[in-house]
Amino acid sequence: MPRSIALLTDFGSKDPYVGQMKAVLAAHAKTQFILDICHEIEPFNVIQAGFYLAASYPYFPEGTIFVAVVDPGVGAPRRVVLAERSNRIFLAPDNGLLSMVLDGAASLKIWDLSRAAADLQSSDTFHGRDIFAPLAALLAAGQRPQEMGREITASSLKIQPWKSPRIQGDVVEADVLHIDRFGNCILNLRTAEWLDRLSRWKEPEMSIVDNFPLKLTTAYAELAEQDIGLLAGSQGFLELAMNRRSAADNLGLRIGSALALRDAAA
Amino acid sequence: MPRSIALLTDFGSKDPYVGQMKAVLAAHAKTQFILDICHEIEPFNVIQAGFYLAASYPYFPEGTIFVAVVDPGVGAPRRVVLAERSNRIFLAPDNGLLSMVLDGAASLKIWDLSRAAADLQSSDTFHGRDIFAPLAALLAAGQRPQEMGREITASSLKIQPWKSPRIQGDVVEADVLHIDRFGNCILNLRTAEWLDRLSRWKEPEMSIVDNFPLKLTTAYAELAEQDIGLLAGSQGFLELAMNRRSAADNLGLRIGSALALRDAAA
Amino acid sequence: MPRSIALLTDFGSKDPYVGQMKAVLAAHAKTQFILDICHEIEPFNVIQAGFYLAASYPYFPEGTIFVAVVDPGVGAPRRVVLAERSNRIFLAPDNGLLSMVLDGAASLKIWDLSRAAADLQSSDTFHGRDIFAPLAALLAAGQRPQEMGREITASSLKIQPWKSPRIQGDVVEADVLHIDRFGNCILNLRTAEWLDRLSRWKEPEMSIVDNFPLKLTTAYAELAEQDIGLLAGSQGFLELAMNRRSAADNLGLRIGSALALRDAAA
Repeated sequence: MPRSIALLTDFGSKDPYVGQMKAVLAAHAKTQFILDICHEIEPFNVIQAGFYLAASYPYFPEGTIFVAVVDPGVGAPRRVVLAERSNRIFLAPDNGLLSMVLDGAASLKIWDLSRAAADLQSSDTFHGRDIFAPLAALLAAGQRPQEMGREITASSLKIQPWKSPRIQGDVVEADVLHIDRFGNCILNLRTAEWLDRLSRWKEPEMSIVDNFPLKLTTAYAELAEQDIGLLAGSQGFLELAMNRRSAADNLGLRIGSALALRDAAA
Repeated sequence: MPRSIALLTDFGSKDPYVGQMKAVLAAHAKTQFILDICHEIEPFNVIQAGFYLAASYPYFPEGTIFVAVVDPGVGAPRRVVLAERSNRIFLAPDNGLLSMVLDGAASLKIWDLSRAAADLQSSDTFHGRDIFAPLAALLAAGQRPQEMGREITASSLKIQPWKSPRIQGDVVEADVLHIDRFGNCILNLRTAEWLDRLSRWKEPEMSIVDNFPLKLTTAYAELAEQDIGLLAGSQGFLELAMNRRSAADNLGLRIGSALALRDAAA
Repeated sequence: MPRSIALLTDFGSKDPYVGQMKAVLAAHAKTQFILDICHEIEPFNVIQAGFYLAASYPYFPEGTIFVAVVDPGVGAPRRVVLAERSNRIFLAPDNGLLSMVLDGAASLKIWDLSRAAADLQSSDTFHGRDIFAPLAALLAAGQRPQEMGREITASSLKIQPWKSPRIQGDVVEADVLHIDRFGNCILNLRTAEWLDRLSRWKEPEMSIVDNFPLKLTTAYAELAEQDIGLLAGSQGFLELAMNRRSAADNLGLRIGSALALRDAAA
């Protein structure tokens, strides 16, 4: 089976931009194994794109070529980079988009493809179509990174850090990393690091302006109508949720909102 | 040609959820014959999903595997069911989503796949990706329902009825089943049952608060600027429509709105 | 590789309409080489659809069959036409949608497929699914236009002209042809015709109500925070843009807005 190509952009759905990227892939890669992760990244939000990519890539087949284009620096001299991790290939502008994807990797190979990019005829405003799609097509056709650019060190990549949670005495200060369509609020607390710890709390409580008791649970449907649940979400992070209601709307939370968690029984 | 897989969810387009479902299908089913019916079902609206699925499935190739996930009960003990009808396979949570699809079938086979579902490693919050997609992949790879669960009777399925029209004297009380992007109001009046009957009316009229004369027509473009048309829509139901204008906006109708139809000449 | 089929409609994403079109293509064309240009064309906006199609088609593989359905006259006696240009096939209602695509073609072949359309069982309200998709499927399967209809002259096609820029003394009066997701305002000034000319201006200035100095640039990222840039966009036209901000919102521009450009130093 040919390699899959997976796309992640902030191009939205109302313009012909994603269609034109796919046209180039269809014309040059001779493949239509093209999958969309999402195209509704907030314009220019490199951190959100990094979160989506990190949360999604493990589900894609090995060999997948990811093309992630959130690129406010298009046309200016930022590098075009390729990273290899977990038998997958990631193409992106060097603007920190890949920070979360590459975080914690034991071994990494990173390439600067700016030379190959410069060989392409391109607009200065739409490298997704004119640079990234053709480069992905070359990779899908079997060309290797070393034929397209030069290896660089991971430490030379631009980093776009996301905000870590802070511990202040017995309080955990967290942030809303993402709010999904259902109003579930994904916190910047990795399940692997935080679930056990918070599960030992006897009376978990959240403070925004007011205090709200939280119910530790596993499923939305286990929550009573007014309950605010804290549970392991599907994207690798803890999330606040309500049952068939928007936690974000009910709590007045937005992406980036800060909140404090504590054990009221401690 | 391999089986097609058709997806219908309430996951929307702003999150990476649909992308992750397709990633699992690409990785496990080794097929990318994946088609979208729609992902903009209103959150948790099982009845709307049932309508979309019933209106759409006959157009898909025989052999298609439909994966319909509107699943407010995810993580709670609701069953995962498979139904066979018209040489197509339907996978959904047992929450009434399949009621309209299965309505009126001469012969049906239904399976409870909860056992196969329990064998899968899964989150408690995203069975679309972790349960339904892998089960669809197994089916696409040729596994048969009897290898994956046990047959159950159709009568054991949870039913989610949609509201039928009521006849009160010479008045037909109908409801708005759906409003589409153009503002056309699809009524809960099946064309096959109601078109002939209403076509015999001499002065069809609709009452919401006020009374509006209706023009029986076949095409939007046949309507004059202020006309409110009643016609056989494309989804198997009668609909109210205007020419290049939104009937919903002009009449103040919403999904679920009730209205009364009568023959003013009777 | 089989022919690609590329879709452009005003059907949006909240209804099952695009899914049903693709179902028919999958069932009849036995291909799933289906690509989307866009489905968010404003309802009934034939001119916008023409712009998207003209800007996008050159990126698609030769042999691609384009199915463009923005069709307020559905069900009324408008023709179904096929045009061949640049080794690609365009199917559309005869309502002017193809005007911009066919503009300036050296040689053109146009066919009226209304006869083949009349042979199909169809609703009167959804020819995208019932007429255009089946005709595209026949073409994808190798049927030739001459087997499906009769050749007609290009001059018999309905024309839907877009507004050309006007020159008044030393002022160029242009219009906003399109506003994209980022707020970039695409003007009705073709880059090939206008870029050199405007590049010679010493102090380019735009008047809406007030006067704004413009900065001629090539890349969004070259603009300072308050700069309003004029640059060659990716769709073949000049555009007004700001750096990581919406030019449309900041300038109060909408699709169709008129503005005047002049050289304040002249």
